[in-house]
Amino acid sequence: MSHTPRQVHIQEVSPRDGLQNECRFVDTDAKVAMVDALSECGFSKIEVTSFTSPRAIPALRDAEAVMHRIKRNPNVVYTALVPNMRGALRAMECQIDEINVVMSVSESHNRANLRMSREESFVQLRDVISAVKSTTSRINVSLSTVFGCPMEGDIEEDDVFAWVEKFHALGVDGITLCDTTGMAYPRQVGRIATRAIALTSEIDLTFHFHNTRGIALANTLVALDAGVTRFDACLGGIGGCPYAPGATGNVCTEDLVHMLEVNGIDTGVDLASVLNVSRRLPEMIGHDVPSHLLKAGHRLTKATQAATQD
Amino acid sequence: MSHTPRQVHIQEVSPRDGLQNECRFVDTDAKVAMVDALSECGFSKIEVTSFTSPRAIPALRDAEAVMHRIKRNPNVVYTALVPNMRGALRAMECQIDEINVVMSVSESHNRANLRMSREESFVQLRDVISAVKSTTSRINVSLSTVFGCPMEGDIEEDDVFAWVEKFHALGVDGITLCDTTGMAYPRQVGRIATRAIALTSEIDLTFHFHNTRGIALANTLVALDAGVTRFDACLGGIGGCPYAPGATGNVCTEDLVHMLEVNGIDTGVDLASVLNVSRRLPEMIGHDVPSHLLKAGHRLTKATQAATQD
Repeated sequence: MSHTPRQVHIQEVSPRDGLQNECRFVDTDAKVAMVDALSECGFSKIEVTSFTSPRAIPALRDAEAVMHRIKRNPNVVYTALVPNMRGALRAMECQIDEINVVMSVSESHNRANLRMSREESFVQLRDVISAVKSTTSRINVSLSTVFGCPMEGDIEEDDVFAWVEKFHALGVDGITLCDTTGMAYPRQVGRIATRAIALTSEIDLTFHFHNTRGIALANTLVALDAGVTRFDACLGGIGGCPYAPGATGNVCTEDLVHMLEVNGIDTGVDLASVLNVSRRLPEMIGHDVPSHLLKAGHRLTKATQAATQD
Repeated sequence: MSHTPRQVHIQEVSPRDGLQNECRFVDTDAKVAMVDALSECGFSKIEVTSFTSPRAIPALRDAEAVMHRIKRNPNVVYTALVPNMRGALRAMECQIDEINVVMSVSESHNRANLRMSREESFVQLRDVISAVKSTTSRINVSLSTVFGCPMEGDIEEDDVFAWVEKFHALGVDGITLCDTTGMAYPRQVGRIATRAIALTSEIDLTFHFHNTRGIALANTLVALDAGVTRFDACLGGIGGCPYAPGATGNVCTEDLVHMLEVNGIDTGVDLASVLNVSRRLPEMIGHDVPSHLLKAGHRLTKATQAATQD
């Protein structure tokens, strides 16, 4: 663990990646209150919503309303997911700090989600990137299924990095490598992190893990050790894939912050504040959440009774 | 991850640490069937039961019956937890392969669980160890709360290793360092693993993690990297502390085996067989289990539909 950085950035994605798959529509007031509470927790970035078709993601059909009504903290970068030019224009009208465009490095996954080939996506996103670069907004690219595709299996790492290089050459401000369905494993993460850092040293590199198979925190540790300093995380560990029933969601913010904090790594995030927001989630979305910390508390929470035998 | 060993031993504890806290009594037939199925999965060791007072742990009141009725696989070491001489005698009458004595390195925790001081426990266990060493059975010592005590907080690592040395000097065959309530964190695990390996090179050293705060697989990775090659794990991730409501249990066997296997580490355990046994758990104990793999399957399980956007 020799290269573990002292400070890492936690980027909260629950208002977007968390809520987008929920059956229950979370009303705009509740979303705004959630984002406003998250804005006081110390996150570097908050992904507020997604400017997609309301038919595709009805849970986030109030994107503009949420963006207009949140109170912005100047220390937070507010970002939103955008699949195409139409979404980018909607987002820019909201004076968003950053636009996060997305495509998949898996052909099948890209066709299934975005209804076009990867090359078609790239051409569209190139235009979006060019448009955003003429404004004051930042532009980030999220690449899905980098660590494996649920339809195709492993994606050739050379192919992954060909896409990283193509977007990097367009002058984006950041690239996010996404483990869309929790297929990443430690040795692979170390390999990809090392290679990604070498290619993207002057821009922001984010790793986005899902905890579908329970490995997200272990993968984070490996990525940290390789030198990655930005991680997406999701309050309560909600979110995840609507087509993988029972699978758990994104890496849980409070579990991640706790692990890093007790390990001596500064995230700038206040764990108690995060837990206060997370505690409201089950009522808001109507079901229990995968968070461990919400149940167990900080490792130094004192118990008054005995524990088990070992 | 330079020192990661190629082969690690997985020691299954579900019949003991998993079932001991369940409200529903699992009948003897079901326990025997479970152990027999586990015996065919490739585990190095199975902790079958606990020879404690039936009043203290009613869930395991059929210890003798289970031990007598299981079919033993000669490649598996069958062990049982034993708190005192009376339990050791009961276990030895069952021709057990190994006796696993237990005490806590935390004074408060030891008093709460075993109703005596650590020194009193040590004196009793010294006699047990001496008695077992005159037989053909192996003797293992499990030290609880090594990575933190829910009542006292962190335990001085020098104190932990004073107990390790005292038991090592008695000539035990193995020592297990237990993270009883999931308080371990990566940097601490690395430190303790390195020191423990140096002290116990000629005997078996096991790490026993709980996933109470979601860090168990990350901790395992760090311990592996330090050179630890034996890990306790528990089918379905059941078990845990009866006095920490909502806290999840032991590190989940199938999640651990999956992570190691996809990472290129040989465990000798057949994941499909483990999942077949784990799948029966919810019906057996009457509730859902924390296992990720049981829900999500192997990372290369093919989906037929699209996933989310990132």
